[in-house]
Amino acid sequence: MAKRLIIRNGRFAQLGADSKQTTLQGFMVVEEDRIVYVGETLPSEYAADDAEEMDGSRLFFMPGLVNTHGHAAMTLLRGYGDDMVLQEWLQNKMWPMEAKFTDQDVCAGTALAVLEMLKTGTTTFVDMYDHMNEVAKVCEQSGIRAALMRGAIGLCSEEVQQQKLQEAVQFAKDWNHAANGRITTMLAPHAPYTCPPAFIEKFVQAAHDLDLMLHTHMSETEAEVQQNVTDYGLRPVAHLEKLGFFSRPSFVAHAVHLTDEEIEVLAKYNVGVSHNPASNLKLASGVARIPDLMRAGVQVSLGTDGAASNNNLDMFDEMRLTALIHKGVSGDPTAVPAAEAMRIATVNGAKMIQLQDVGLLEAGMKADFIAINIDQPHLLPHTDLVSHMVYSATGRDVAHVFVDGKHIVKDGQCLTMDEERIRDEAARAFEGLLTR
Amino acid sequence: MAKRLIIRNGRFAQLGADSKQTTLQGFMVVEEDRIVYVGETLPSEYAADDAEEMDGSRLFFMPGLVNTHGHAAMTLLRGYGDDMVLQEWLQNKMWPMEAKFTDQDVCAGTALAVLEMLKTGTTTFVDMYDHMNEVAKVCEQSGIRAALMRGAIGLCSEEVQQQKLQEAVQFAKDWNHAANGRITTMLAPHAPYTCPPAFIEKFVQAAHDLDLMLHTHMSETEAEVQQNVTDYGLRPVAHLEKLGFFSRPSFVAHAVHLTDEEIEVLAKYNVGVSHNPASNLKLASGVARIPDLMRAGVQVSLGTDGAASNNNLDMFDEMRLTALIHKGVSGDPTAVPAAEAMRIATVNGAKMIQLQDVGLLEAGMKADFIAINIDQPHLLPHTDLVSHMVYSATGRDVAHVFVDGKHIVKDGQCLTMDEERIRDEAARAFEGLLTR
Repeated sequence: MAKRLIIRNGRFAQLGADSKQTTLQGFMVVEEDRIVYVGETLPSEYAADDAEEMDGSRLFFMPGLVNTHGHAAMTLLRGYGDDMVLQEWLQNKMWPMEAKFTDQDVCAGTALAVLEMLKTGTTTFVDMYDHMNEVAKVCEQSGIRAALMRGAIGLCSEEVQQQKLQEAVQFAKDWNHAANGRITTMLAPHAPYTCPPAFIEKFVQAAHDLDLMLHTHMSETEAEVQQNVTDYGLRPVAHLEKLGFFSRPSFVAHAVHLTDEEIEVLAKYNVGVSHNPASNLKLASGVARIPDLMRAGVQVSLGTDGAASNNNLDMFDEMRLTALIHKGVSGDPTAVPAAEAMRIATVNGAKMIQLQDVGLLEAGMKADFIAINIDQPHLLPHTDLVSHMVYSATGRDVAHVFVDGKHIVKDGQCLTMDEERIRDEAARAFEGLLTR
Repeated sequence: MAKRLIIRNGRFAQLGADSKQTTLQGFMVVEEDRIVYVGETLPSEYAADDAEEMDGSRLFFMPGLVNTHGHAAMTLLRGYGDDMVLQEWLQNKMWPMEAKFTDQDVCAGTALAVLEMLKTGTTTFVDMYDHMNEVAKVCEQSGIRAALMRGAIGLCSEEVQQQKLQEAVQFAKDWNHAANGRITTMLAPHAPYTCPPAFIEKFVQAAHDLDLMLHTHMSETEAEVQQNVTDYGLRPVAHLEKLGFFSRPSFVAHAVHLTDEEIEVLAKYNVGVSHNPASNLKLASGVARIPDLMRAGVQVSLGTDGAASNNNLDMFDEMRLTALIHKGVSGDPTAVPAAEAMRIATVNGAKMIQLQDVGLLEAGMKADFIAINIDQPHLLPHTDLVSHMVYSATGRDVAHVFVDGKHIVKDGQCLTMDEERIRDEAARAFEGLLTR
């Protein structure tokens, strides 16, 4: 018989289209990697003697958070240069350090990132970086779910471009559906302003050949949009449309600077937007038009971006920012209600990366979920627990994390990663970068 | 001999005007309620045998956070109505419930708020509410520092107005400098739009008579500013100036909608602004012109506002929002750097309420400080700990809190308050409000 976990007397976020209320009090049953039942009472068929039991009475259960844009290894540069003008920050701080990154550094930085993400309730993340085999190995071992891709900057010779493309393709082939399906892969030319059109077209062709999704940075800053117009006579959306990018299932990160027409084009091609509010604010890029995108039917998900421009990987923080800033900037207090912010941070993120069976606490879904201890001062009284998760909880409140049915974080401790070793290796890797 | 505490091998935030670096590694010595030494080495005169010692080697020490605007008892209404239009929220949700508040409710709600604040690193808070004797008692017993005032709405008969004024004055007299000086008092007509001019003038006169500071809500929404122009022919700043409000040491909450001329008037009278970013965003009031206020020399501090419009009392959250949103909205990534955000949340808050010896880790200052465990994934590597406190830490990372030299929170547990009882009483109080 399948290994079974019964959670008794918990409160469960219900964010599906058919849900009458956002919180259900009752029972959840997990068998192997799947949720098989959520309901107010426990049907007798599940009450087997040998099932593992969990007391949910002080816990709120919600889908694991899905972080749809980031560069995990950049945790090594957290706090190394803040509050600076973008070009100065990139040229004097980030790029010189990133150029030194070895496999070992990426492994250390990614492990630190994955540990932080798991402990703060993220069960799936998207990573676009270099040395991706190292990233995939960390994901395989830690138990997290991930969509991975080698991000390729094309400001180099055609020969080097070709190498990067091959590397990206090889990585995508090697790791797609690895780790019991927890790892999927995509292709990712870095951005229209860092990739010549012909280079982007090669990625589009490869995505067709391998049937993979495409991801890229787009329209993060106004300057980059203007540069695109100067260089190619088109704004980035029309430019990518022309290069065939949107002929593939695809999603873009940032999309801060969009016209109404561009929003329509994204909706038409079903191109998703990974919103990264903290990073966009910190780098002074602006505030993305999220309510307008959602009204137009564009799928929106949430990302942290790299830790160097955030500076944390706590998706609770992004969820709260999303619920707050669009109200303040639009003047509409009903913009992005709490339950919608939670959907954006969970099920919408899963759908964005084509995980149709992740992101809801419903029978048939993957058992990717987290539990928060709600008997804490800042989560009382228990008026509206979804609201509390969005407006008052932090990732530090997460007590339990399950991915693919496996208990990964228990009482705040990560069971699959050696925290002390990871902390030490990250500190040593950073010292090494400073002295090399 | 005075009771002495020596903290060894800690890292200490140094935010004073003379500080060469924002973090100092070394020693801090506390005697009774004062910091007597902070430095890289420990002078032999402090190395007494009977001193209490604390190992600071995994901790970052910073001044306790100062929350300069709030309504503590409103924790009882946390999550009771979110994402609504302001008037609907006030008229259908907040006011009917608040009208039922008894002494006991205010005691329960304030205790929950103070517990949350202490555990998340706030050592001083400003409270404007009703049933203030209950609030003062909670402060006295919990060990927190507070500036308290009876907030008076003047939309009532002159007789009731007079009662409220007397109540406010009596409270201010009874509690000023109570609890070993931890409690100070002020006077607070609620807002220009809720208080007739003559009522505000009476508060101004009473503040002169008793030599007290004044505090009020001002220009939170554009609608309220326009109403002021309609009713009195003046925008709120000119209106309050005319009523003599600024002839007293005073500070206002919100100040979201200000003209350049109004900013100049606030600077001229040295009127401070308590910025409440989360509340202003959540209620869709807008984004205050904080960089402009600071450039004009207006003192700026930080507040959470009540938990019903936030919905937490974690000042780390406000500190991060302040460092993030003004960059994103102004387009200037150097706006409100991390160290400045920390000053606004600590020493500037203390100065705002005339506590000249609170808010810095320096010899001679009151021993109001907190310690954060920095050996955590989201606070590594140790590049810039002030940046980490602002951009990555949360109040849930606070391990120790000292107020007036007393150890109030130890390893995350509050030593002065009975957490379980407070949680139960808050839950019961909320149930009572629902059913009465």
